[in-house]
Amino acid sequence: MENLKDRIKQDGQVLPGNVLKVNSFLNHQIDSDLMYEIGQEFAKRFDNEKITRILTVESSGIAPALMVGLALHVPVVFARKQKSAILNGEVYSAKVYSYTKQVENIVGIDKKFLQADDQVLIIDDFMANGEAVKGLVEIANQAQAKVVGVGIVIEKAFQNGGQALRQAGLRVESLAQIASFTDNQVHFLGEE
Amino acid sequence: MENLKDRIKQDGQVLPGNVLKVNSFLNHQIDSDLMYEIGQEFAKRFDNEKITRILTVESSGIAPALMVGLALHVPVVFARKQKSAILNGEVYSAKVYSYTKQVENIVGIDKKFLQADDQVLIIDDFMANGEAVKGLVEIANQAQAKVVGVGIVIEKAFQNGGQALRQAGLRVESLAQIASFTDNQVHFLGEE
Repeated sequence: MENLKDRIKQDGQVLPGNVLKVNSFLNHQIDSDLMYEIGQEFAKRFDNEKITRILTVESSGIAPALMVGLALHVPVVFARKQKSAILNGEVYSAKVYSYTKQVENIVGIDKKFLQADDQVLIIDDFMANGEAVKGLVEIANQAQAKVVGVGIVIEKAFQNGGQALRQAGLRVESLAQIASFTDNQVHFLGEE
Repeated sequence: MENLKDRIKQDGQVLPGNVLKVNSFLNHQIDSDLMYEIGQEFAKRFDNEKITRILTVESSGIAPALMVGLALHVPVVFARKQKSAILNGEVYSAKVYSYTKQVENIVGIDKKFLQADDQVLIIDDFMANGEAVKGLVEIANQAQAKVVGVGIVIEKAFQNGGQALRQAGLRVESLAQIASFTDNQVHFLGEE
């Protein structure tokens, strides 16, 4: 997705430790129109999959997931990072380690919102080691739902999350795949 | 907003302690098309206000805020509930007490994403005591930005948050105002 890549080059900040900060348009401030286009792009790529539900994790996954849900007219379920006082009853849950924040969270989804006949598309804003996606796949497996694909806005392709998921047979579509941050510049896969 | 009220009556669950659970369409599972309509409705109500930025708090505020941002073609900024490892630098922040979860959070917004010439619309999914909105107003004040209005999807009008904000001179628009939960039924303001 060329306009996304252009935006990353223009506004993304490369920080020490291979951290890419895109909080001016993706995950703190959100460019609503760009996010809409992101939703349309995922919907186009997964158009033939008869998706019935979108899964993501709070908070940064919600915006892209919602725009895909809107494009496909299906509900979006976001896993919560801890049981709130309101989230009683039975939940599917999985442990997710965040390397960025260096914390382990339990993410959970109310069992009412995931069924064995669901065709699930997992959406997230970022993927590096793929921990969040693996947690959501585990949750879908608990519900015996079928994961038909994974859509990632920005994949750090030099880390092993995407490779592991693809080798496990999952279809993973990333709108921007980062090959490296050499010289504090973002280089995408397939570029010279 | 009649179809929202119908949906609350149909799918909302009244729990002990005046808790309304609407997690099947608003804040755990999200009905994408209903959320789009919610965004359109807020955009219509605040159409003349020359809004430049939408403010909300993670996580449940993100979906309605994003749909308003999309309708008005302005950026959405969501306050984060704790400083992440990535959110370094200078932030505006305020304390917000959640009665539902019985915890106090610090919510923060990177100073880059709020300017003195901003015309801010605050959006949130729920308002009871108005703690989250007050925190966002405080943050906007720190930036010397102008809060032109507050849009709430569901207001518990029998609690004092909305009244306090309106008495302080703020324009507050709520799409569904709950008068009471008598006999485990949802009763809206203005109904018999």
